[in-house]
Amino acid sequence: MSRGVTRLDRGVYALAGVTVAGAAAVGGAKEGAGPLGPRFDLTIEDDLHGTTSFEAAEASLALQAVDQSLKKSGLARDAVDAVLGGDLLNQLYSTNFSARQHQIPLYGLFSACATFTEAVGLGAMLVAAGGVERALAMAASHHMAAERQFRYPIELGYQRALTASWTATAAGAVMLRPEMGEQASDNLGADRAVEGGVRVTAVTTGRVIDFGGHDPMDMGTAMAPAAADTLERHRSATGREWGDYDQILTGDLGVVGSRILVDLVRDGDRFRDRHEDCGRMLYSPDQDVHNGGSGAGCAAAVFAVWAYPRIQSGELRRVLMVATGALFSPTSYQQGESIPAIAHAVEFECIGRGA
Amino acid sequence: MSRGVTRLDRGVYALAGVTVAGAAAVGGAKEGAGPLGPRFDLTIEDDLHGTTSFEAAEASLALQAVDQSLKKSGLARDAVDAVLGGDLLNQLYSTNFSARQHQIPLYGLFSACATFTEAVGLGAMLVAAGGVERALAMAASHHMAAERQFRYPIELGYQRALTASWTATAAGAVMLRPEMGEQASDNLGADRAVEGGVRVTAVTTGRVIDFGGHDPMDMGTAMAPAAADTLERHRSATGREWGDYDQILTGDLGVVGSRILVDLVRDGDRFRDRHEDCGRMLYSPDQDVHNGGSGAGCAAAVFAVWAYPRIQSGELRRVLMVATGALFSPTSYQQGESIPAIAHAVEFECIGRGA
Repeated sequence: MSRGVTRLDRGVYALAGVTVAGAAAVGGAKEGAGPLGPRFDLTIEDDLHGTTSFEAAEASLALQAVDQSLKKSGLARDAVDAVLGGDLLNQLYSTNFSARQHQIPLYGLFSACATFTEAVGLGAMLVAAGGVERALAMAASHHMAAERQFRYPIELGYQRALTASWTATAAGAVMLRPEMGEQASDNLGADRAVEGGVRVTAVTTGRVIDFGGHDPMDMGTAMAPAAADTLERHRSATGREWGDYDQILTGDLGVVGSRILVDLVRDGDRFRDRHEDCGRMLYSPDQDVHNGGSGAGCAAAVFAVWAYPRIQSGELRRVLMVATGALFSPTSYQQGESIPAIAHAVEFECIGRGA
Repeated sequence: MSRGVTRLDRGVYALAGVTVAGAAAVGGAKEGAGPLGPRFDLTIEDDLHGTTSFEAAEASLALQAVDQSLKKSGLARDAVDAVLGGDLLNQLYSTNFSARQHQIPLYGLFSACATFTEAVGLGAMLVAAGGVERALAMAASHHMAAERQFRYPIELGYQRALTASWTATAAGAVMLRPEMGEQASDNLGADRAVEGGVRVTAVTTGRVIDFGGHDPMDMGTAMAPAAADTLERHRSATGREWGDYDQILTGDLGVVGSRILVDLVRDGDRFRDRHEDCGRMLYSPDQDVHNGGSGAGCAAAVFAVWAYPRIQSGELRRVLMVATGALFSPTSYQQGESIPAIAHAVEFECIGRGA
């Protein structure tokens, strides 16, 4: 299948010839104890993961996710053209320090908890363009590192609001490659093309939406309008209806944001039938996470361990994934600013298997 | 000229059919008083620029750079498919808050002071891919906002080291579009294609290089090895020699980093003849900036006001721009980590005019 990018509308593109060749996720102890825990490639028991800081531990998680996805794709680090990825830490600490180890050319990205779909979308566009042969999209977060940076030191032991999300200790990475039958654009002839699996069929780039929410303990409310905007732009440009998807998977809206989203989108009742949220899936209700999981690694990990295998097996034939990000900083919050948000969409389809 | 991306080597791509349709820069009072001052599209006299914080002022600068580049390209905000950009502030404050105003679909990027060439490179790849018709690449920084975030509050009045750079108050933006004769991939037929001007011909994605520098008051030393790595990868994959360029323009190495770079690259003497550094160009020696200018906006502004007009006029026929970024954070510094760095390269050529 020949590769290409077709503009459907402003910021909405149909892609041809791009597949996900492998996906992996690494999680913390709490994530390992959740309903998706057994599906993680690795889980760590110690928050410091053998390092001396939570930030260094997050970088180590990010590196492990990269290496696990390489292993599952049958590729070495030096066979990858680019890593596209990011995290929540100031100056992308974990992405940059993990890239110091893996030495793969790096595009650092930031869309807060929407970084994973920003990375997959951009990576898929680059592979569809025909020059990039293997792009790895990743995102990472660490509960302890994020809490002390964005909110309060854990040691303070403050009571969390019921609308607050739990930043996941998790990293996920997926490998993007041309589909079978594609001619490599250089001397990569010996490289086996991908057979079957999961195709990236469309991408929508989010714009920054701000409905005026001010509460960093309620990011679902701040992010739901951005998800609704991206969903509507994607639906309208692709000409699909909610029923055309087996699953619509939002990022980290959680319990509160998901309810708001259903009220904001067109045909909310039909939407609800197809909708699930990564933030609601990562933990079980008895894990005391209130609104659900969040963090750049949450959507990445849930895609890698839950959605990707189901699309690959044909159980889900078409999935629309819309990770959402709250773009506030502690500085903007302290200055009394509201919380702008963004959501990037990526559409995946099952290849073959009687399609 | 038909569009396309060709892989020359890992992370190095030749592009066809992509032009820079317009470039603009906005600067602060000190930048306005420097040797390039008269060339800025706008300069502001007040560091707060009518806002209540330096961060909000930076967002306002970023928005003005976007709008100025739109004006010079003859386009409205809603005619642009994507903004690719970033800044130095935690969680990309100024990029995200300016995007809340311009409402153009956004890819948030972070490579510290190398963000401008990351943005131009990625944007050019997307336009070359054939789906994105108009991409705007931008980067911004603000001296007062950066100093208090990365180093010390200005009010402390500490003595700056002679190797320290001066973070520029500046924002730059460039519009990327298909070259004349290209068929638009959608219903944009009425849109005039670009005639003549500046072509983006090649891109190299940087990898993270860390030679062990620990001093945030000497980023030139930390970044020079990353510049050397990217320069060598670009030169070797494209088969060019330093003499093939009219100008090789590094980002913010300044006086110290530029000297080190000449020692690190192959054929250093020939390299020196073609080399200039944005950090050395933005201010004059009597402006007391020591090592030179830095900040994500420095390279963006120097490209927009100095290099772009010279390539457009044919005075410079081929320019290689390599912006450099120090990827440390205050957290990584406080934890005793060394300073990883990255450099992204973009090659520009003059179109027509007797070529």
